[in-house]
Amino acid sequence: MSTSGLNMSRRIRRTPYTDRVEQVGVRGFSVVNHMLLPKAFQSTVEEDYWHLREHVQMWDVSCQRQVELKGPDAARLVQWMTPRDISKCEVGQCFYVPLVDEMGGMINDPVLLKLADDHFWLSIADSDVLLWAKGLALGAGMNVTVDEPDVSPLAVQGPKAEDLVASIFGEHVREIAFFRFGFVEFGGTQQLIARSGYSKQGGFEIYLKGGALGGALWDLIWEAGQAFNIAPGCPNLIERVEGGLLSYGNEFTRENNPLECGLAGYCNTDGSVDYIGLQALQKIKADGVQRKMRGVLFDGGPGPAVSKPWPITVGEKRVGQITTGAYSPRFKQNVGLSMIDKGHWELGADVVVHSSDGLKRQGKISTLPFPD
Amino acid sequence: MSTSGLNMSRRIRRTPYTDRVEQVGVRGFSVVNHMLLPKAFQSTVEEDYWHLREHVQMWDVSCQRQVELKGPDAARLVQWMTPRDISKCEVGQCFYVPLVDEMGGMINDPVLLKLADDHFWLSIADSDVLLWAKGLALGAGMNVTVDEPDVSPLAVQGPKAEDLVASIFGEHVREIAFFRFGFVEFGGTQQLIARSGYSKQGGFEIYLKGGALGGALWDLIWEAGQAFNIAPGCPNLIERVEGGLLSYGNEFTRENNPLECGLAGYCNTDGSVDYIGLQALQKIKADGVQRKMRGVLFDGGPGPAVSKPWPITVGEKRVGQITTGAYSPRFKQNVGLSMIDKGHWELGADVVVHSSDGLKRQGKISTLPFPD
Repeated sequence: MSTSGLNMSRRIRRTPYTDRVEQVGVRGFSVVNHMLLPKAFQSTVEEDYWHLREHVQMWDVSCQRQVELKGPDAARLVQWMTPRDISKCEVGQCFYVPLVDEMGGMINDPVLLKLADDHFWLSIADSDVLLWAKGLALGAGMNVTVDEPDVSPLAVQGPKAEDLVASIFGEHVREIAFFRFGFVEFGGTQQLIARSGYSKQGGFEIYLKGGALGGALWDLIWEAGQAFNIAPGCPNLIERVEGGLLSYGNEFTRENNPLECGLAGYCNTDGSVDYIGLQALQKIKADGVQRKMRGVLFDGGPGPAVSKPWPITVGEKRVGQITTGAYSPRFKQNVGLSMIDKGHWELGADVVVHSSDGLKRQGKISTLPFPD
Repeated sequence: MSTSGLNMSRRIRRTPYTDRVEQVGVRGFSVVNHMLLPKAFQSTVEEDYWHLREHVQMWDVSCQRQVELKGPDAARLVQWMTPRDISKCEVGQCFYVPLVDEMGGMINDPVLLKLADDHFWLSIADSDVLLWAKGLALGAGMNVTVDEPDVSPLAVQGPKAEDLVASIFGEHVREIAFFRFGFVEFGGTQQLIARSGYSKQGGFEIYLKGGALGGALWDLIWEAGQAFNIAPGCPNLIERVEGGLLSYGNEFTRENNPLECGLAGYCNTDGSVDYIGLQALQKIKADGVQRKMRGVLFDGGPGPAVSKPWPITVGEKRVGQITTGAYSPRFKQNVGLSMIDKGHWELGADVVVHSSDGLKRQGKISTLPFPD
């Protein structure tokens, strides 16, 4: 089964936009960072996929909570948490930063926003980075405050996103480069807007500060969006797998290191930067990784949702598991993401995918993103 | 709305018992510690309530994850995290321990199990205590390993629990006192069993080590339980509110301190024990708390589920909010849990509860647990 009932309670936090997504007919949620993430509306995942590629969507991604680090030791703490050299991050820039523990295991993979030399946000995936950062800071006696501000990102994604956002907030948003942020005026407040988002279709994320403004922001974009054929949406399963966008907790966990996740480009291991897990990553690099993140293209037509991983075999040997998969209407095949064991990760290699409907599906190892 | 669809993915972890709870007809889940918690079966919450008070139920509470602290500094780390004096905890004992941050804000409220002088489990509520403990240990350079073992608690709750468990594992389990644990033999393994559980009806929790054994353990108890009228169940909303059992994330969050949560009895503030947040709690105690956890008994018949808090007013003033509530078939009134502001928390004081169906319900402040 791919969906079941979700029992609501205060602990599963609503967002500033939840009333609105209910009004437009949300049918299903996931839970990320103790908060609701809309995952299904009235249309199918495939309809949403085409719409996202052709028009513009508005996504309630409030669950991308911000962990705010502020104070004299803020930069030092950020650098301690990530293998990426953050001295190269400028104010106004977004940096994708793997966070690892002392074994090199992934703690999270947030986007870092540098607001000032002593002021950062970590826009996080699904783990309590707040507790990790606070624990490290308290333990080491660092002079930094760590908190979760009242900031709830709203994503505007799709090829028409720039025209829509410019029509509302002004032409200057067009000047914001990819993974950079600026500010827009909204209801007498200045709001941070970044050119970013969890799709490959382009767009922006508005980091709304002040949840009380959520309904008004939603309505403003919704109204202006009518001329652009806007629809409510959410990170699209097909589009994200095709684009090779990984999800913490799905494709990788604390059991995985960033080198095997394909994130070596974000890991400085030459010793010029010091951080938690440096020695572990140096050793993993020297020894060579034992598995690698890959795409798998496999046949057999549309299958059930991947609610628990699907084993991947070569002969009798299990060499991986599909952690997220979907039927691609463009490729007319299934696309999936998997760690693949050493010796079996060559591009084009043959594998068998054991889907939960009992089928054995012929597959081939692919690069990520899947080539168009 | 009280339920909506939950979209499944690997990130929302299944438990060793999920296949079984699906077989017996689970209808709804919540998500705790990135893991499924069954929340509804075929019967109503009220039917489950009576059954739990009269017979025995088996609950998949695997989401009560264990954070294992092991090593020379394990006891020092535990004590640093909690205001409770853990020097009084014996091997074989369970201690309810509030965890607080440097402001005195609640981080979690786990049950501590002392396995040995240098070996502890924290059986946690819904926040990543693993990251908190690891961060503190790494920051302070402590000699302790922090990990999540493959341990998945299965609760057996209700007045017939002892007879059932004794019939399976032997008469010696009857000797286990409340909040103490022992061991039972199961399939060639020794498994930890504690007299504990998230109800006031008595029973045990089996901390199953080795998820692969989950199905066999479930089946063993299920078969033996037929003679005791066993049913699948879950923490029961009515029973837990009547019993005054609080839930982290629902009744209190990091915004609350343990003194206002009614947990002063678990907080040493005389300075004989040092921990994170000691100074903060001493100041709060000296100043006096500004609100207190209370029960609220209110009329108007059964209402909708409390999926977002219901405001509580006195005159024009908001003095609290029902964070969890339910209709009690025994009291023939609604019972709810709320922090109540200073000046309004006297027992028997009149309040008005604004339920989400638009009713204004007359209520009275009560002790916790609600008096029978």
